[in-house]
Amino acid sequence: MTSEEIQRLDRKHVWHPCTQEKDLESMPPIPISHADGVYLYDSDGRSYIDGVSSWWVNIFGHNHPRLNRALIDQAGKVSHHIFAGFTHEPGVELARRLAELTPGDLCKVFFTDNGSSAVEAALKMSFQYWQQVGKPQKTRFVSITEAYHGETIGCLSVSGCDLYREIYRPMLLEEYQVQGPDCYRCPYGLTREGCNAECFEKMETLVAREHENIAGIIIEPLIQGAAGMRIYSAEYLKKLRALCDRYQVHYIADEIAVGFGRTGRLFANEHAGVAPDIMCLSKGITGGYMPLAVVLTHQAIYDAFYDDYQTMKAFLHSHSYSGNPLACALAVEVLKIFEEEKILDQLPPKMNLLDAGAERFEQLDTVGEFRRCGMVAAVELVQDKKSKTPFPWQQRRGLEVFKKALQKGALLRPLGNVVYFMPPLTIDEQALQDLLDAAYDSIVEVTQT
Amino acid sequence: MTSEEIQRLDRKHVWHPCTQEKDLESMPPIPISHADGVYLYDSDGRSYIDGVSSWWVNIFGHNHPRLNRALIDQAGKVSHHIFAGFTHEPGVELARRLAELTPGDLCKVFFTDNGSSAVEAALKMSFQYWQQVGKPQKTRFVSITEAYHGETIGCLSVSGCDLYREIYRPMLLEEYQVQGPDCYRCPYGLTREGCNAECFEKMETLVAREHENIAGIIIEPLIQGAAGMRIYSAEYLKKLRALCDRYQVHYIADEIAVGFGRTGRLFANEHAGVAPDIMCLSKGITGGYMPLAVVLTHQAIYDAFYDDYQTMKAFLHSHSYSGNPLACALAVEVLKIFEEEKILDQLPPKMNLLDAGAERFEQLDTVGEFRRCGMVAAVELVQDKKSKTPFPWQQRRGLEVFKKALQKGALLRPLGNVVYFMPPLTIDEQALQDLLDAAYDSIVEVTQT
Repeated sequence: MTSEEIQRLDRKHVWHPCTQEKDLESMPPIPISHADGVYLYDSDGRSYIDGVSSWWVNIFGHNHPRLNRALIDQAGKVSHHIFAGFTHEPGVELARRLAELTPGDLCKVFFTDNGSSAVEAALKMSFQYWQQVGKPQKTRFVSITEAYHGETIGCLSVSGCDLYREIYRPMLLEEYQVQGPDCYRCPYGLTREGCNAECFEKMETLVAREHENIAGIIIEPLIQGAAGMRIYSAEYLKKLRALCDRYQVHYIADEIAVGFGRTGRLFANEHAGVAPDIMCLSKGITGGYMPLAVVLTHQAIYDAFYDDYQTMKAFLHSHSYSGNPLACALAVEVLKIFEEEKILDQLPPKMNLLDAGAERFEQLDTVGEFRRCGMVAAVELVQDKKSKTPFPWQQRRGLEVFKKALQKGALLRPLGNVVYFMPPLTIDEQALQDLLDAAYDSIVEVTQT
Repeated sequence: MTSEEIQRLDRKHVWHPCTQEKDLESMPPIPISHADGVYLYDSDGRSYIDGVSSWWVNIFGHNHPRLNRALIDQAGKVSHHIFAGFTHEPGVELARRLAELTPGDLCKVFFTDNGSSAVEAALKMSFQYWQQVGKPQKTRFVSITEAYHGETIGCLSVSGCDLYREIYRPMLLEEYQVQGPDCYRCPYGLTREGCNAECFEKMETLVAREHENIAGIIIEPLIQGAAGMRIYSAEYLKKLRALCDRYQVHYIADEIAVGFGRTGRLFANEHAGVAPDIMCLSKGITGGYMPLAVVLTHQAIYDAFYDDYQTMKAFLHSHSYSGNPLACALAVEVLKIFEEEKILDQLPPKMNLLDAGAERFEQLDTVGEFRRCGMVAAVELVQDKKSKTPFPWQQRRGLEVFKKALQKGALLRPLGNVVYFMPPLTIDEQALQDLLDAAYDSIVEVTQT
């Protein structure tokens, strides 16, 4: 098909995710024909650096020879079979490796298909655990403001981004929400590097008062992604772990976006030296090739479900494609690549390059903050730097930067006024510099005129 | 890895879906090493006819040359990229074909990753539609007893299978539920072949009374799968469509299990000659290779979300892997295979074979009913045939049949007292006969002694 034919059929029959379709009248969807490394190529041969890892999933680049090989090899054996009553080598190999690599004593791996389903399974698992250990009043969950944990009803109920949930409020569950860290506009006047997570007092107050009704606290460790890449101190996670221990509340870590090397370590919780009770992983798990998600937990939670069938304590959650062998084979290969190619060891010069970029961006009076955690960096655009006043959302400045950057061959899909960098970990320094340059020039064009 | 090593690691690190893990002490999970056609092969070389299509997903057999080829070809182009702002040929080709093939004027295709996510998106879409067309009081959904629509909180809220949801009740939304068809134990003393869906009066009564609060009615057309393959008359769907039209309520068809040829037609709604307002598809859509789901709807619903961005009417639902090109390429190939290999035309002799089997099964005094719809058939085991009294669930008779059948080389995962057949559509008559024989002999062994 030609570009025009693809676009015509797209407009006729496709309803895109997270998109006001009317926007496509002036910004027709770009048909991608192939991809290689950090570059996506459209049907007309133009290339785009995938600066957001295609919604944060791609970690080693596109069309990766080892991942392609793993996929093809597994397809030649079995692409999928039922995972209840049956098992397979890539599934158990993946579970073994994840149990070894994740923090603490997370040792049991439950498979789902996407991040939302993993969070739903985690919430149900936590809820059911308390029902089965004699604390049935512990039914509610705590999240923090601007949290994002997915799109299904359970996920939206523990999310804090009104953009995604406000209209559905009558459909949502009543959960607790507390003010989370907001380091750029810290109400305590502190900095994320120097603070002691003083803002955690909001969480302490709530949990001290309500812990008898609380099953778990769900959080995106270190980086609140959809909130605009809000980066906060690891101290917050240390305090959270201690609080959960004190009051018998599950710490549920949503490492869907931050896992698999994004923060410079394999998992974000490593920065705080703590382990959650339940951990959700997805996105980078297959290298960005196809959907897969897992929920990890420790023996104590698993044991609360382990009994004679007739006691009805089993966790009966399932999805048809649970434990999909194609996805598991890819995920095993991802973990081998991390290990054998020493991916994390190669990140420091790239993180330095991002930091070097920070100075240039922060000189602009329309850049409120350039923040970085591992291989994730974000530029927050502001109308007024001193008062940190954002541009009115209706102006869609981030979107304008996205459009300019596309013309320069960079894909930088924004989050409101935040333009961020989350490239594949394997991006080379030249491409990373190109990405920074495209963003800088676009921001200048969009905000300095 | 050896069988023993896989099983050891499995028990140590894997938490299986829909499984009381303690059962695995006496029934260790069987490691599948490869598969071909309708046969799964374990690591010790034993084969099993996949009589349940690996949880109802496989439709053309395993390791299918055309599907493998489609997967490999797409992997050589691009396995995945962001689907907001971008598009690709397999995505638009799939959307075009689905719009053509599905009933009525369903013309817009929204992509998700699994059935649960599709149902959640459908509920949110229906809810938001009414908010945006001036009927904000239409917030609730109707489902029927024993319905199954997935595992996430929104899905469980519109489900009727207590097995999967009773323990989570405090987490669920309050929705309407009405008594659905129960043809084997019809309270009206009618038969599904001869009735006029008299039981639909329950739905009529509720909707007539509550329609101002009702956004949509969600239903599994023709076969309630998890309920034990309850098969009911297409007349019910005709009445449902008329009722929805009369009271301005969305008909949401969950064809996740019944779509893609299971009922003998490509989509179950064709039997009733009606079209839903929103339709969810998954499972067979990729031929059983990997997760993918779609939500289809018509122009009028789409239009209610189409406006200037600043009106905040967009449907902002998304999943990272929305529109995954690998999955879309498989799905396009599935539809080509249906067409080019005339799959549906080859079903009648197999359906006849199932019907011929019915007579033999129904002669057993422990078989209450042998029912069939298309290529799905179910045997309901009973303790007393006259009173239709089921075996006590604690005896797990269906599970015992499953275990016996496995020894005979057939995979027949049961639903309580119901043993069912949902093989790949391409199963040949000999394999289908083998499957029936294995089931028959196992049922005799388990219930006649």
